[in-house]
Amino acid sequence: MRATLMYGAGDVRVEDVPDARLIEPTDALVRVTRAAVCGSDLWPYKSMPHDDAGRRMGHEFIGVVEAVGSDVETVKDGDLVVSPFLWSDGSCVFCREGLQSACLHGGRYGLDDVDGGQGEAVRVPPADGTLVVLPLRADEALMASLLALPDVMGTGHHAALVAKVGRGKIVAVVGDGAVGLCGVIASKRLGADRIILLGSNPERTALGQELGATDVVRERGEEAVARVRELAEHGAHSVLECVGLEQAVDTALAIARPGGAIGRVGVPEHDTTATGVAFWKNVSTAGGPAPVRAYIEELLPDVLEGRIEPGRVFDRTGSIEDVPDGYRAMNDREVLKFQIKP
Amino acid sequence: MRATLMYGAGDVRVEDVPDARLIEPTDALVRVTRAAVCGSDLWPYKSMPHDDAGRRMGHEFIGVVEAVGSDVETVKDGDLVVSPFLWSDGSCVFCREGLQSACLHGGRYGLDDVDGGQGEAVRVPPADGTLVVLPLRADEALMASLLALPDVMGTGHHAALVAKVGRGKIVAVVGDGAVGLCGVIASKRLGADRIILLGSNPERTALGQELGATDVVRERGEEAVARVRELAEHGAHSVLECVGLEQAVDTALAIARPGGAIGRVGVPEHDTTATGVAFWKNVSTAGGPAPVRAYIEELLPDVLEGRIEPGRVFDRTGSIEDVPDGYRAMNDREVLKFQIKP
Repeated sequence: MRATLMYGAGDVRVEDVPDARLIEPTDALVRVTRAAVCGSDLWPYKSMPHDDAGRRMGHEFIGVVEAVGSDVETVKDGDLVVSPFLWSDGSCVFCREGLQSACLHGGRYGLDDVDGGQGEAVRVPPADGTLVVLPLRADEALMASLLALPDVMGTGHHAALVAKVGRGKIVAVVGDGAVGLCGVIASKRLGADRIILLGSNPERTALGQELGATDVVRERGEEAVARVRELAEHGAHSVLECVGLEQAVDTALAIARPGGAIGRVGVPEHDTTATGVAFWKNVSTAGGPAPVRAYIEELLPDVLEGRIEPGRVFDRTGSIEDVPDGYRAMNDREVLKFQIKP
Repeated sequence: MRATLMYGAGDVRVEDVPDARLIEPTDALVRVTRAAVCGSDLWPYKSMPHDDAGRRMGHEFIGVVEAVGSDVETVKDGDLVVSPFLWSDGSCVFCREGLQSACLHGGRYGLDDVDGGQGEAVRVPPADGTLVVLPLRADEALMASLLALPDVMGTGHHAALVAKVGRGKIVAVVGDGAVGLCGVIASKRLGADRIILLGSNPERTALGQELGATDVVRERGEEAVARVRELAEHGAHSVLECVGLEQAVDTALAIARPGGAIGRVGVPEHDTTATGVAFWKNVSTAGGPAPVRAYIEELLPDVLEGRIEPGRVFDRTGSIEDVPDGYRAMNDREVLKFQIKP
């Protein structure tokens, strides 16, 4: 069959490869009817060192099932199916929680005898856990939108969900690529009041406005921040970071409202930074100076009724004249926390 | 009156200062009955350059109201009151949302004619917005726990809330200082199943166990991560980072479960990093590889019924033989997203 391989930066070839075939009893063999090139496919296209073996490409596809292994239950020959950009078993603890992208037994297309999506056919491992059957035959008008589901639309939706987009919210979307535009769609779908799209490409931002963006900011860096602040005095409640470059992350932080949320789906420029580690684990990070005024009222009944005893952290008490020694003792780790009775 | 001033690293003095007095009609004058030294007071104690004027210290206190300005409505002479570590107006948009630590008109104790808490009396600006009246006279047994409310208990509670602590959750608390121990209390109060306390001080971790920690990890760095993984195979759902040093943040990220949440209340070592900016704004950051398998089912009805049209991001279609040129065109930004019909 024909399939796409990348041999290095700028070197993409369509070649004959062995036909896709069932290997495991949980596999499905899917004849690809639509596939896509992802923005993330462009990273190796820009920088991949030459590799004589080539790398099978593609992780976004729709297709028709041609054969299934003996253990497959939910998918059958002739079904039109869509795959997420990762395959997953559907049964591990993370899949059951809805975080299939952290599947303990899942993986990527194009590796380890699993075909890439940019080819004529794909062996899909754990077919039951991975594939979703579409309730129609090939309706041409919808096919492109269905092809957005394996990655860009789901990714824009993820950004909007984790950025807590909802009714009454001001949203800013950083990036006018396919994921950013899908972030606009997702934000509108989730009821955002106002959607500010940050992007410099006139055609893409125009499409963004058709898809739901209420405002476009073409500036970059500090000028972009100033422009967003003109549109939203305290910043945006929800910021969808759909680029991944450090400058985009800095912009996202600068335009976020105090107490706001940033949804990061732009793959981070550097994997090993704290934000890179958090990204790959889908870990959220929040916090800052505590709004203690609100919490005093919430916690006070528990203190008054003795259900919590935070006062146990005070292990030394002195008069105000003892305060200098209290500092010394805390600094020497001789005292955990010093209490003053003036 | 007597009050605490810091003149530089290691140089804390108790001195006579002008008596606290009402200035604004919204002020209250509070006679301090209990105050505390904060872990954050130790940073200038370690590093503050000498300052001839000295800095008024203290932001955690309880006291009795001696006088109020003409505009104060909720606080009266003789009330026993507790203050958050920041003062706030109670009426701005952030205060109304419960994020008083981002009050547009609030501030810190010890600056701009507002007294510090480590002294005999304090002028408290916007008294109505800042002070909480305690429904009792001075009950000695509870006073230490009430004194934890202005900062450490509220801060530990904030860490637990933003780390999404709740029933069924495995929690890890990084740091055995007063805030970390209050994070243990908060996690137990919010129903955590298991609370792993990471700290090296035997007395403090023993207190942590009395307050609710189910496990203690004394190791640091990679050994600590390995030990947590023995206790919780995939990591902790909720991690409370109560230190602020970069190593503690790295540990928090390493022990967080995929899909988990980190609550950061340890004041960051570096203010200008992305995590430092996020901290001071109380902005949350989340995201990573989207669990598209779950979202396909959620979004599919909207695509099938035409309510969303993410397919509009595909602006060129070609056969599989056209794929190499599709990569080129996307890389040249000539095409937004390339669709393949094999």
